[in-house]
Amino acid sequence: MPGGPACAYVARMTGPRYTPLAQSLPATVPFVGPETQERQRGAPFAARLGANESIFGPSPHAIAAMQATASEIWMYGDAENHDLRASLAAHHGVRPDNIMVGEGIDGLLGYLVRLMVGPGDTVVTSEGAYPTFNYHVAGFGGVLHKVPYKGDHEDPAALFAKAAEVDAKLVYLANPDNPMGSWHRGADIVAAMQALPAGTLLVLDEAYVECAPEGTAAPVDADDPRLVRMRTFSKVYGMAGARVGYAIGAPDLIAGFNKVRNHFGMNRAAQAGALAALADGDWLAHVQSEIATARGRISAIARENGLTPLPSATNFVTIDCGSDGTFAKAVLDSLVSLGIFVRMPFAEPQNRCIRVSCGPSAELDAFAAALPRALEIARG
Amino acid sequence: MPGGPACAYVARMTGPRYTPLAQSLPATVPFVGPETQERQRGAPFAARLGANESIFGPSPHAIAAMQATASEIWMYGDAENHDLRASLAAHHGVRPDNIMVGEGIDGLLGYLVRLMVGPGDTVVTSEGAYPTFNYHVAGFGGVLHKVPYKGDHEDPAALFAKAAEVDAKLVYLANPDNPMGSWHRGADIVAAMQALPAGTLLVLDEAYVECAPEGTAAPVDADDPRLVRMRTFSKVYGMAGARVGYAIGAPDLIAGFNKVRNHFGMNRAAQAGALAALADGDWLAHVQSEIATARGRISAIARENGLTPLPSATNFVTIDCGSDGTFAKAVLDSLVSLGIFVRMPFAEPQNRCIRVSCGPSAELDAFAAALPRALEIARG
Repeated sequence: MPGGPACAYVARMTGPRYTPLAQSLPATVPFVGPETQERQRGAPFAARLGANESIFGPSPHAIAAMQATASEIWMYGDAENHDLRASLAAHHGVRPDNIMVGEGIDGLLGYLVRLMVGPGDTVVTSEGAYPTFNYHVAGFGGVLHKVPYKGDHEDPAALFAKAAEVDAKLVYLANPDNPMGSWHRGADIVAAMQALPAGTLLVLDEAYVECAPEGTAAPVDADDPRLVRMRTFSKVYGMAGARVGYAIGAPDLIAGFNKVRNHFGMNRAAQAGALAALADGDWLAHVQSEIATARGRISAIARENGLTPLPSATNFVTIDCGSDGTFAKAVLDSLVSLGIFVRMPFAEPQNRCIRVSCGPSAELDAFAAALPRALEIARG
Repeated sequence: MPGGPACAYVARMTGPRYTPLAQSLPATVPFVGPETQERQRGAPFAARLGANESIFGPSPHAIAAMQATASEIWMYGDAENHDLRASLAAHHGVRPDNIMVGEGIDGLLGYLVRLMVGPGDTVVTSEGAYPTFNYHVAGFGGVLHKVPYKGDHEDPAALFAKAAEVDAKLVYLANPDNPMGSWHRGADIVAAMQALPAGTLLVLDEAYVECAPEGTAAPVDADDPRLVRMRTFSKVYGMAGARVGYAIGAPDLIAGFNKVRNHFGMNRAAQAGALAALADGDWLAHVQSEIATARGRISAIARENGLTPLPSATNFVTIDCGSDGTFAKAVLDSLVSLGIFVRMPFAEPQNRCIRVSCGPSAELDAFAAALPRALEIARG
């Protein structure tokens, strides 16, 4: 029997047997973290302006809640996230069964893709949009179709048309957009959804919506089965390291997460911190104001250096360096070598830009001091 | 065209399109959490002795580290878990590339199963062993084969023989065992591994090993490709709510996690807390001593009530209630109704027992006070 058994024998000599899909995946990381870069360069960054973290920090009440929970961390977190879901529901005027709390939007996107996407299933996103979403789609064997930005905006009409064309199970749209900082009015997205195919779920990532103009959040019913919205405590709420995100959607979809999620996966202190952060509207308003100030400052620094800041509805400003991707990458590399952690868009023509997170004066002073030299180096 | 297109049309009318696997999964939870039970009963528990959490708490240094990190939680955690992996490597006398840190053993088991198990792939475990592992296997479409315990011990020889019989990709073995508290000498497991099939990866869950007798940890080379060991800060280290576990294994296997894990999924304060906890050997010794005392006390309480405590190498004691599963369930339900949170084994004949976590005197006093009444109620 030289056929099956021999093959089986060979397979069994190779150690752990991965799935064909796992075997095919690269060991990539969607982003290289700042700590990794600090270890590579052998020095800490002077300003951490690359990951759209909120240097303004979390609410003092959130800090106090997390500190108070530290001694209770021997207890697993509430698997139902009951109190946080109840508060979020009240905050948004929806029901708790419209809310799923998870380990950041990244974690929730992973669960969502797992529920919907198997090998060969099609998914649509924008060329140059959030790479962690793409990572999850690839990780479950999905086939990504990408449409270009329209100017520096994601293009809902093109996204939904492509979804119809390729019969996509999911279409991803971030509003406001990362990495460009651009945005659509929520009403315009809802209008565009008339062309959303019936078999396509819209994943509307509103991670930055708390620093966008009034009217940016999509005015949709939480029970609308056509979309799921993603929100987070990682950006304006200043709790990226806590890992708390949530999805808003129709109860059937929300309940679906219970089939695959890590039920006891939430950090107990993070649950308490998010609850306190949500209740502290004053801190949110303070950070929103600081972000507005910082956006102005970053834009001014860009202009002083002959560069063009793009309008932003986020906690970062994307700066057009006025040339191509090679030049912007040189500016970025120079900034990094000077101790300023920033990032840049991945795709053409957006990669003519660098992306600078908002922060307090000290960090922006450091950026202002380094940028002229970085441009000098980049210009050779 | 009444064939394909019509079917496609019907499918597209049904809303979000789940994968066939996701469609088939129930929305279950491996465990009902104590907070859920408290909401159901309308009152908090007087003693939380059901989830093998460490009521003795985490190291004061770990608490301080988490508190200090609260104001820095605006930063994502280090995606590489560099410092924690380096410390764990030094602690175990292995290399950092032998270590993968993840969101608790639960999170790591999910990633591992995802890497190895697709629809129809076979996996072996013990009847009544850790249900969250089973949840992950079912969640990726794997087919579970279960072997009975031998007495109240997991049976490595039977597990490995079954793995050979069904050509399993994974075989799960907890040592010490949960829910029975029993254990094997590590050397005996290594000896039994001579019968481990070449194509089967042993998942050796050593979550409780820090409270087991010397010699319980498997004396294997970290580079041994035949197994991966799982460890956690949730049990003896008292940080269940922080969600920090780690895998020890061969570098190829460890690197595989990078294909699918949530790279920025770790809570930054939890990383700092685990680092401090690992460095505090005095606290570990203190908790180990408290656990030994509590095991003695729980055993004494059981005997005073005519029940039989089983030997334990864990931070809980499994108590034989002397009858069948129906009786033990009645005892458990009565304890719960009296405000004592405990759990019990799921499978016959282990379900003749209840399982009581170690804790300080106050909690065990509450258990001691409730048990006679609970037995009275259970006996009708």
